[in-house]
Amino acid sequence: MTDTKTSVTVLGTGRMGSAIARLYLAAGHTVTVWNRTPGKAAELVEAGAVEVGTVADAVAANAFTVVVLFNGDAVRATIEQAGSLGTVLNLSTGRPDEARDIAALVEGRGGRYLDGGMFGVPQTIGSKDSLTIYSGSPDAHEEHRGLLELLGGTLYLGADHGLGSLNDMAVLGGMYGLFAGFFQSVAMVATEGGTATEFTERLLLPWLRETVELLPTLAAEIDAGDYPVSFSDLDVNRTGLANIVRTSREQGADTRLLDPLTELFDAQAAKGFGAASFTRVVEELRAR
Amino acid sequence: MTDTKTSVTVLGTGRMGSAIARLYLAAGHTVTVWNRTPGKAAELVEAGAVEVGTVADAVAANAFTVVVLFNGDAVRATIEQAGSLGTVLNLSTGRPDEARDIAALVEGRGGRYLDGGMFGVPQTIGSKDSLTIYSGSPDAHEEHRGLLELLGGTLYLGADHGLGSLNDMAVLGGMYGLFAGFFQSVAMVATEGGTATEFTERLLLPWLRETVELLPTLAAEIDAGDYPVSFSDLDVNRTGLANIVRTSREQGADTRLLDPLTELFDAQAAKGFGAASFTRVVEELRAR
Ligand SMILES: NC(=O)c1ccc[n+]([C@@H]2O[C@H](COP(=O)([O-])OP(=O)(O)OC[C@H]3O[C@@H](n4cnc5c(N)ncnc54)[C@H](OP(=O)(O)O)[C@@H]3O)[C@@H](O)[C@H]2O)c1
Ligand SMILES: NC(=O)c1ccc[n+]([C@@H]2O[C@H](COP(=O)([O-])OP(=O)(O)OC[C@H]3O[C@@H](n4cnc5c(N)ncnc54)[C@H](OP(=O)(O)O)[C@@H]3O)[C@@H](O)[C@H]2O)c1
Repeated sequence: MTDTKTSVTVLGTGRMGSAIARLYLAAGHTVTVWNRTPGKAAELVEAGAVEVGTVADAVAANAFTVVVLFNGDAVRATIEQAGSLGTVLNLSTGRPDEARDIAALVEGRGGRYLDGGMFGVPQTIGSKDSLTIYSGSPDAHEEHRGLLELLGGTLYLGADHGLGSLNDMAVLGGMYGLFAGFFQSVAMVATEGGTATEFTERLLLPWLRETVELLPTLAAEIDAGDYPVSFSDLDVNRTGLANIVRTSREQGADTRLLDPLTELFDAQAAKGFGAASFTRVVEELRAR
Repeated sequence: MTDTKTSVTVLGTGRMGSAIARLYLAAGHTVTVWNRTPGKAAELVEAGAVEVGTVADAVAANAFTVVVLFNGDAVRATIEQAGSLGTVLNLSTGRPDEARDIAALVEGRGGRYLDGGMFGVPQTIGSKDSLTIYSGSPDAHEEHRGLLELLGGTLYLGADHGLGSLNDMAVLGGMYGLFAGFFQSVAMVATEGGTATEFTERLLLPWLRETVELLPTLAAEIDAGDYPVSFSDLDVNRTGLANIVRTSREQGADTRLLDPLTELFDAQAAKGFGAASFTRVVEELRAR
């Protein structure tokens, strides 16, 4: 916590950028903000932030800049408008190749670069339940640790600028599977009356809470290499999924989101792995 | 708890059937078991269960029979071998139409029928964290409540024999989305070294734990009808998912499981809903 009195610049005052600027304001830091469309930071300004009109002025104001923009292209276009740079922490969701490119751009202007992603939403960022992962300049990580920890839980993954982003992508890939399943569930019960909220709170959420806790055991099956059955085998899951797909169709709901998993289960069954754990389908996805 | 001294028959001593038979034995009930392939119940017999050689003998032994078989076809083929029936509780995963057919078969032989599904695994069934949902004969539900509650949490959904199964299918559809996401994640990090277990415990599980808790808020967006943004809009999610898919391909992992969600995001964006919540994609799936 060496820099509790350091000032902070936040580029981008959308949902997530505003939430982060508010965290720094609440912790007593001086906060400078910039947003492509000016005037959107009125609430932040009221809470004490200083809004400036150019990227160059914003990054010149402080040694530490947090970037929270739409995507990697927006980040690159924005940083190109800056002059010389201090430490830049980019938390916009983006790819590892983008992180490495932006690192070169930042370093070319004398700055140090950290890149990562946030496992949190505007309402939870800053709490101990959120986690911000990042990688890049070890010096910047050491120096600004205190400012990073105001974001909630943090995990530094090493000097490679792409590592934070790569792990972010892998985790978010899992999250979008969960969301796809949620959409499938809700579409299936929609025809039956009752609200999505009631179904989710009463049935879906309790079981998904339990199911996520099974994942380490399923991961251990995968690491074991021979996919021993901890809970249920491929045949049982394949017949179950076929029933879900058929029921969903009969309810008039699209089954597109589940069809590729059916394909993977079928492919593994055709190869004779019906008695292995259903986790064996990762073999169909993995790089060879 | 009127029937704590009732004896119980379990048809099917696979992973789940055995776990259930063990619960009844542990609670002091007399348990009769039958399995298509005889001799697989040796451990249960050692623990005090009585194994019989025919379905007819098994169901004749007790007034309450639990069926835990591979699928609906297996259940039907098995029940056709029984004579007159008491109460039959079918917890095998199956479709609502199968539940209604089997109900007619059971009632035709003088029995009462309950059908449902278990949100649990062999290791958790019987604990308060598991949930067994079911529907069908209200009288059987009333009379055998005590025996049902030995399975852990229970929820009776009404007299329609298909309701338990329909809700089971909808929840399991969500679970398979979560599993698909897990496979995607693991395939993406597989090329980077490190184990699936470490990645899951350190990064994926903590974030999915948080993400499931967001589902009621997302469900409320859907119920609201106009998909107000609680956390993030469709455009942000669409560009994020595109990055995940591209990164996954660059890592050499198949993206098949995520491609349909990309399609849905694109379809909604093409219709001009980029500023709505990403939950608006359920509109693409729903029965019209
Ligand atoms: N919301 C979440 O729950 C969440 C969670 C984790 C990560 N994230 C990530 O955080 C980032 C921001 O998300 P958000 O939800 O805060 O989005 P948002 O509310 O839509 O805000 C987007 C921000 O990006 C700016 N922007 C867009 N295109 C730009 C460009 N070409 N040049 C400069 N600025 C541009 C916008 O400026 P204007 O006001 O001028 O349009 C705005 O400040 C995304 O990468 C997202 O994946 C969000
Ligand atoms: N395992 C879980 O975590 C879990 C969780 C929730 C629900 N379930 C559901 O529970 C049910 C059983 O799953 P499980 O994991 O216990 O499966 P399992 O270990 O493979 O056992 C399958 C059982 O079904 C019997 N069977 C298969 N085909 C049959 C047929 N044509 N006629 C009569 N019996 C037949 C098998 O007998 P043989 O020994 O003769 O093959 C065995 O007793 C499935 O519907 C599954 O979806 C399982």
